[in-house]
Amino acid sequence: MEKLKKYVSVKDEDQFYHQGAVELLVFNFLLILTILTIWLFKNHRFRFLHETGGAMLYGLVMGLIIRYSTKASDVESGTVYECEKLKSGPSTLLINITNQVYEYQYKREISHHNVNGHHGNAMLQKMTFDPSIFFNILLPPIIFHAGYSLKKRHFFRNLGSILTYAFLGTAISCIVIGLIMYGFVKATVHIGQLKGWEFHFTDCLFFGSLMSATDPVTVLAIFHELHVDADLYALLFGESVLNDAVAIVLTYSISIYSPKENPNTFDAAAFFQSVGNFLGIFAGSFAMGSSYAVVTALISFTHLTKFTKLCEFPMLETGLFFLLSWSAFLSAEAAGLTGIVAVLFCGVTQAHYTYNNLSPDSKMRTKQLFEFMNFLAENVIFCYMGLALFTFQNHIFNPLFIFGAFVAVFVARACNIYPLSFLLNLGRKQKIPRNFQHMMMFSGLRGAIAFALAIQETESQPKQMMFTTTLLIVFFTVWVFGGGTTPMLTWLQIRVFIDPDEDLKGEAASQSASNLDKNTTKAESAWLFRIWYGFDHKYLKPILTHTGPPLTTTLPEWCNPIAKFLTSPSAYGDQLRNNDTDYIINNDELTENYESSAHISVPAQDRTSSTRATGMEDIHEGDLGLGRYKLQLEHTSGQPQLNSSA
Amino acid sequence: MEKLKKYVSVKDEDQFYHQGAVELLVFNFLLILTILTIWLFKNHRFRFLHETGGAMLYGLVMGLIIRYSTKASDVESGTVYECEKLKSGPSTLLINITNQVYEYQYKREISHHNVNGHHGNAMLQKMTFDPSIFFNILLPPIIFHAGYSLKKRHFFRNLGSILTYAFLGTAISCIVIGLIMYGFVKATVHIGQLKGWEFHFTDCLFFGSLMSATDPVTVLAIFHELHVDADLYALLFGESVLNDAVAIVLTYSISIYSPKENPNTFDAAAFFQSVGNFLGIFAGSFAMGSSYAVVTALISFTHLTKFTKLCEFPMLETGLFFLLSWSAFLSAEAAGLTGIVAVLFCGVTQAHYTYNNLSPDSKMRTKQLFEFMNFLAENVIFCYMGLALFTFQNHIFNPLFIFGAFVAVFVARACNIYPLSFLLNLGRKQKIPRNFQHMMMFSGLRGAIAFALAIQETESQPKQMMFTTTLLIVFFTVWVFGGGTTPMLTWLQIRVFIDPDEDLKGEAASQSASNLDKNTTKAESAWLFRIWYGFDHKYLKPILTHTGPPLTTTLPEWCNPIAKFLTSPSAYGDQLRNNDTDYIINNDELTENYESSAHISVPAQDRTSSTRATGMEDIHEGDLGLGRYKLQLEHTSGQPQLNSSA
Repeated sequence: MEKLKKYVSVKDEDQFYHQGAVELLVFNFLLILTILTIWLFKNHRFRFLHETGGAMLYGLVMGLIIRYSTKASDVESGTVYECEKLKSGPSTLLINITNQVYEYQYKREISHHNVNGHHGNAMLQKMTFDPSIFFNILLPPIIFHAGYSLKKRHFFRNLGSILTYAFLGTAISCIVIGLIMYGFVKATVHIGQLKGWEFHFTDCLFFGSLMSATDPVTVLAIFHELHVDADLYALLFGESVLNDAVAIVLTYSISIYSPKENPNTFDAAAFFQSVGNFLGIFAGSFAMGSSYAVVTALISFTHLTKFTKLCEFPMLETGLFFLLSWSAFLSAEAAGLTGIVAVLFCGVTQAHYTYNNLSPDSKMRTKQLFEFMNFLAENVIFCYMGLALFTFQNHIFNPLFIFGAFVAVFVARACNIYPLSFLLNLGRKQKIPRNFQHMMMFSGLRGAIAFALAIQETESQPKQMMFTTTLLIVFFTVWVFGGGTTPMLTWLQIRVFIDPDEDLKGEAASQSASNLDKNTTKAESAWLFRIWYGFDHKYLKPILTHTGPPLTTTLPEWCNPIAKFLTSPSAYGDQLRNNDTDYIINNDELTENYESSAHISVPAQDRTSSTRATGMEDIHEGDLGLGRYKLQLEHTSGQPQLNSSA
Repeated sequence: MEKLKKYVSVKDEDQFYHQGAVELLVFNFLLILTILTIWLFKNHRFRFLHETGGAMLYGLVMGLIIRYSTKASDVESGTVYECEKLKSGPSTLLINITNQVYEYQYKREISHHNVNGHHGNAMLQKMTFDPSIFFNILLPPIIFHAGYSLKKRHFFRNLGSILTYAFLGTAISCIVIGLIMYGFVKATVHIGQLKGWEFHFTDCLFFGSLMSATDPVTVLAIFHELHVDADLYALLFGESVLNDAVAIVLTYSISIYSPKENPNTFDAAAFFQSVGNFLGIFAGSFAMGSSYAVVTALISFTHLTKFTKLCEFPMLETGLFFLLSWSAFLSAEAAGLTGIVAVLFCGVTQAHYTYNNLSPDSKMRTKQLFEFMNFLAENVIFCYMGLALFTFQNHIFNPLFIFGAFVAVFVARACNIYPLSFLLNLGRKQKIPRNFQHMMMFSGLRGAIAFALAIQETESQPKQMMFTTTLLIVFFTVWVFGGGTTPMLTWLQIRVFIDPDEDLKGEAASQSASNLDKNTTKAESAWLFRIWYGFDHKYLKPILTHTGPPLTTTLPEWCNPIAKFLTSPSAYGDQLRNNDTDYIINNDELTENYESSAHISVPAQDRTSSTRATGMEDIHEGDLGLGRYKLQLEHTSGQPQLNSSA
């Protein structure tokens, strides 16, 4: 066991840093290549390959190169040392080797079956991230950005449907995949494979829950570019964002489901404990995320009149916004909740309240910062997925399992979308048409979340097989479905280049004439939305932002002292009187006036529309080209406001 | 040695993540506190405490709390295991403990004298970063931002003086500190301390070189806020930026200086090898950094006319800019050069060439992105410095050494500034006045770089003593000198609230009338600057940016084919003819028109000044409050340009 002759002396620490640099350089190179390709594609208006698909492709090629250009250094492979003195693995180990003490840090536990070949190739091993990097560094910006860029009006209008798809749909998907996979596993065992593996129904459910996290980033980018119907966009985007949260918590709850007896039997107590865990973690994370956002909103909207507002210092404001949002993630993690879920709801709440209090500069800074972080993180994950197919060293390709997974994913998506759409259409005034349902069925892509959930634990053989299968499903769906989105839209005859505010134009006209508080246009909205809207508009918005009616008018009379305390007349009373109508339209009713690129050259004299541009524009990664124009527009409209406040 | 009963089982990996979250949360909390404090201070116009000083203070308090609120868990302390089978420390160690294989990763070598108390307190240990984080993650954005925000005109005008201070001055400072410290070390040994320590002259020189990296961030912020003379600002800023690079490479060169015989004797061969190392690393890093920037400039200025310019997609452009700049750092590291130096010159070159090719949106995005990263990284480092005083567990306080270091630092600064200023004044037309020299002497603060250099290696006792001393000097200089800047300015009767373009106003008027290529205003500039300016203006700028005269006019006639190839008539010929005069003024002559906050409300009709606003504004962390106005101004002037190119 002592074949140590060729060990590189680790005293040369510099070499380690430099090697870290080489790996990062590989990723940088892949990202640069991706950007240049996307630039090329944008020029030729190719829509069949999204940047994430491109990143994955380059990652794949690079993985292939690394795999076959670096030789396995079998010297290092699988030397296991015995240490009788230790009873359990300490987090830090001090070892005396030839009279020199070295410090070693605990990394992970390795299954015996993985020991061989574990150290097969130092380069491949170096290219493998610690899985926790995905959850702690790469996912939070992506998820926060998704929350921060929710199209508010259409999202809240379809809130009921989105919640149904996200909660009920994900649960259905998880169970259906779990059941089908259990069948396939049984069949595989029957034909004599997977011998000696522990593969329970809970493992199948685990796979089902991680496979239920959809990530239609490619489809959404194309929708955005082609201005597909805003309701369809909201349904799909809302579903995919919330269903990530549901899938993450569900996966966690399933992984800690531990029946006392035979793991294949149903244990009611353990089951209800898992359900309780799910609800507790979800609610806790939601509360944690939103409360940080509320704190941010309150700080950025300080009533202390002798203070300069924080928005006078956009840099500090942006910093505070960033740090508090990140703290939401970290606090949730520290409290044993799910940081990703917290950061999602933090993003939604920040967009809904804090965003209105930010200075115009900070609005742009925060949007651009998170847009940028999202862009980088997303492409790193997809690059890494491409790489992982060749650099991950414990793949287990089982054709039957893979085939089963493909079948299960599609059946589960169908069982999610069609029955739920049917039920929802019973209650919806504006039905979800047949072609929208087909499009949603088609948009069941898998991506970053499924991958991150699958890579978290890859020690046992079932988990390795799941990881391999997940990777293949991600590749297939991103390339095939992602690439097929445009033809599919044509085939399903879904209208493109729609003005998302088509429905609003009539409304806005009638609205400015009618009573503002009793809004006739709300009649067509969902009841869930109406209840929420009323509460939010009357109480939350006035407390947390500059917008909405004064609390003194919305709260009962006996609450007047409190209302007066919470309402700072100097801070927003005047402002409200000045541009009351504007604000109501701005912050509740519209978000995407400038989405329609047909309006890029809106003349500056078109004041009625440009004064409405201070609302929250959608900031999806698709609108790379529009930013410049948006900026210009925002400033055309921003100037009078600045002058009036100065 | 088997007191392992209370070890936490490391199987519970979740707990590890959560602990990581707690530590990051501590930093987030400190940064949030710092931001809120700075906001308060800005309101009251307090200038005696800069944000970095505040961050350090909060870090100190937090360190104190952590130190005395967490108990030392003596169970874990200093258990060293023997492993006879190993001959050297492998990078990864597989250990079989109670029939379960654990993977351990090499962290570092520990000196025997540090083994006890090494694991004294798990929390303190957790709050200690890996030193490489400073060099690989926190410093690059700070250094890049410094390079990217160099005030170009005043910087290049004082180039000779800045280079003298940075190279010669740092060398003088290093040697003087080294000599003085050697004296103090001898004296300390003489009175019976430091027994058995290996403390050579090279160690003193090492301390001298790391102590030579000045970081007057506090002073510069105040200068910026008070609009102190731009030449003084440029001298101080330029010196501090370049001297960081020099000090880093010098420290590295000294640390690898290894005479063959007695380390106290002078070995000419080893000395010249060190000098060669210094020159090679410096030149290599410079070349690496600038070439990446040149590549970025070329990509962002593609001549391929059938392509949409990259600047149509600000997001991709920003991404490419960020990734290529980071690649400069990583490539230098991978090539065994100094990434920090590469990233500095990359920043300078990016600001000089690429910045001109960027779209207005990307200009702002990149500025804000790096400003933000700089802000966070700087405050994290200063927080950490505060923390380190109490959480670092191997401090060695030696009063005589500390006293010696304080003396040495001040003597060395004096030996650097006064003699060099005298020599420079012999050659300078515009002399460096006496009070400027005193101010430069006073501004010898130590900060992030000195700290990062000192924390890199803290295993041996001399290095630990140096680290402790460095920390104390940073505290003292940042708080005392940083806080004393405003009184000092008054006392030295240095004028404040100066329009940095006072000298330019006459020039600009005469310039637009006179011949543009033969610039009369250059007469007063330094000869080094003139040579550089001519070459840069005639050849580099036309090749790399949209500005400058066409190459066909500047290159000799026989080069015409090449010149025509490099010059894209459609891309910049027309543009040049349109606003030739504007550009010359824009890009070479002015940078800080909008620094003078007195002009905040420049009316839009003041076109002569606002069309010049496309130049590179200085983006120092001091101008937090001005961003909003800048933005507005940039757009007032940006619009006509956008329209004309559309």
